[in-house]
Amino acid sequence: MAADQRPKADTLALRQRLISSSCRLFFPEDPVKIVRAQGQYMYDEQGAEYIDCISNVAHVGHCHPLVVRAAHEQNQVLNTNSRYLHDNIVDYAQRLSETLPEQLCVFYFLNSGSEANDLALRLARHYTGHQDVVVLDHAYHGHLSSLIDISPYKFRNLDGQKEWVHVAPLPDTYRGPYREDHPNPAMAYANEVKRVVSSAQEKGRKIAAFFAESLPSVGGQIIPPAGYFSQVADSREKTSSLTSSPWASPLAMATLLPAWPQPSLWRGHLKPPALSTSTRGVGLFIGVDLIKDEATRTPATEEAAYLVSRLKENYVLLSTDGPGRNILKFKPPMCFSLDNARQVVAKLDAILTDMEEKVRSCETLRLQP
Amino acid sequence: MAADQRPKADTLALRQRLISSSCRLFFPEDPVKIVRAQGQYMYDEQGAEYIDCISNVAHVGHCHPLVVRAAHEQNQVLNTNSRYLHDNIVDYAQRLSETLPEQLCVFYFLNSGSEANDLALRLARHYTGHQDVVVLDHAYHGHLSSLIDISPYKFRNLDGQKEWVHVAPLPDTYRGPYREDHPNPAMAYANEVKRVVSSAQEKGRKIAAFFAESLPSVGGQIIPPAGYFSQVADSREKTSSLTSSPWASPLAMATLLPAWPQPSLWRGHLKPPALSTSTRGVGLFIGVDLIKDEATRTPATEEAAYLVSRLKENYVLLSTDGPGRNILKFKPPMCFSLDNARQVVAKLDAILTDMEEKVRSCETLRLQP
Repeated sequence: MAADQRPKADTLALRQRLISSSCRLFFPEDPVKIVRAQGQYMYDEQGAEYIDCISNVAHVGHCHPLVVRAAHEQNQVLNTNSRYLHDNIVDYAQRLSETLPEQLCVFYFLNSGSEANDLALRLARHYTGHQDVVVLDHAYHGHLSSLIDISPYKFRNLDGQKEWVHVAPLPDTYRGPYREDHPNPAMAYANEVKRVVSSAQEKGRKIAAFFAESLPSVGGQIIPPAGYFSQVADSREKTSSLTSSPWASPLAMATLLPAWPQPSLWRGHLKPPALSTSTRGVGLFIGVDLIKDEATRTPATEEAAYLVSRLKENYVLLSTDGPGRNILKFKPPMCFSLDNARQVVAKLDAILTDMEEKVRSCETLRLQP
Repeated sequence: MAADQRPKADTLALRQRLISSSCRLFFPEDPVKIVRAQGQYMYDEQGAEYIDCISNVAHVGHCHPLVVRAAHEQNQVLNTNSRYLHDNIVDYAQRLSETLPEQLCVFYFLNSGSEANDLALRLARHYTGHQDVVVLDHAYHGHLSSLIDISPYKFRNLDGQKEWVHVAPLPDTYRGPYREDHPNPAMAYANEVKRVVSSAQEKGRKIAAFFAESLPSVGGQIIPPAGYFSQVADSREKTSSLTSSPWASPLAMATLLPAWPQPSLWRGHLKPPALSTSTRGVGLFIGVDLIKDEATRTPATEEAAYLVSRLKENYVLLSTDGPGRNILKFKPPMCFSLDNARQVVAKLDAILTDMEEKVRSCETLRLQP
């Protein structure tokens, strides 16, 4: 590729001029120029290697050679729409169906998670003849008009809540109304949903659907992804069977993180991030909720931003999430290793220790310009 | 690829079981199994070669080697989101900006034409603070909830017209209210839009946008398409400069089609298809409006379906469009040649002649099972 030759400052200037500012950059105060990625690593224009704790979309790792080869083999032969018969689409649907409950046996392949959620909404409305939707607070279901309407995370900053949207509390056992000390928080949160539904029905509203999470995206056009995703599935199986401890890394993350030095500034608290469910939360999807104060559990928003910025300077790519943007969101590719977990935790430790000292000596935690 | 080994009947049976029936097949009465494509040709599982008059999405031709190579080179190096800096996205935006009016200077890259139109709708509503939309009758703007609402082609068969949607007549100079014999049909249709807007405003409605056509799709994730589409642009330029008569083929189509034998059954009428505008209609995007009767211009719907089915048996892939589904819609890849145009016209001629004879001898025009 002839690209990747511009100095980073020029790329940034062009981007600011040509691309809408609503297309956000990671680390906006000092964005990273990434020119290459492999496995769990990304590389900037200077060749610096970053550990990627963000890109779970690169499922089996960036640029997995088997996946790249499958895409290339398919692209050379056929890349068209799904209005012709082809084996890939049915083979892949069959393979998917074997991993799902029997009732989930008819498939639609779409361009993005957003398109999938929009279709789910249409199907629910068409089937029930109803219009209304129950969603969880702070949920995000995609960037389309129809999904912004059902995403409190989005609509609170835009057009507000439509009369056909009903918001149930986030089942957050750390900061929500029912916490770890509750005898049965699951039932208590389920009852909240029941209450929201009853209250809507009393007003004569009719519920079409309950959106609890984004549907998985299986993006792109049909023919290549069929091969592509089969290859992803293959690679995942191979990764699992070839490495000595396939699930060592998530295990490591889960084991190491609670052992962090817990600075007096806040306590690291291990829980799935606000928007995830157990299907997303298993294994490598880990959230760490940073707080300023044990009693009030006040989100440590600025500290989380500072920490993520410092980690980036230390070649670890990480992002935050949650209503308070104070949850460190770990979702690396699956090839993330036990060593990677050790490195990341060591860096976190060092930065947290330094932050504690800064706070003790009344220095301001300032983001690098 | 190990695929493409199933007998066609098995593929069809699996498809009917696993893929939603709302995902339509071309030629549903006897679908084609396509396993390979190159340039303007597609190949079925028996190796039969079809001339493709449908896939204008395969812009410079199916599996163009330069495009396939560009995608592969990029996929090996980096395929990630646009929240990091990268040269491809800004280089491509800059290149696009050079082909557009000065005011069109800020870019969003999206997953599909549908996502682009949804965003356009959001931008218009956010900017104007208004909600309503004026659209052309029979228009189709995409398959998302928000776009079905503004697509008469879709909403007439689904939830009907929303109060914030205003439909202007299709500027059809063949079958619409203002025809070829009108002194100024363009002004007359523009006045219709004005009338629709005034009528809406009198009811207190506030117009956010006028949707006249789908925005072009520049699908996929950002990094690879940037390289990919640059390569498409390159290939297009190269195609133009390398072939002796780059625009011979559209010219040929436009020249040959009016010279068709015009059977007494109907007259071939050359016009852009209902949904296209001049930006799409130039060159290879040609519609042929089939009618049963010169005076009433009744759409020859069944005949168009029969003709398309017979063409498929003769290894020409073509589809219909328009409110009456009677418009033969030619939109082949750009590499479609003068010889291809001659072959297609010759086959059309033979089938039309045969159809005339069948009608004369009172045979039914029956689709092959």
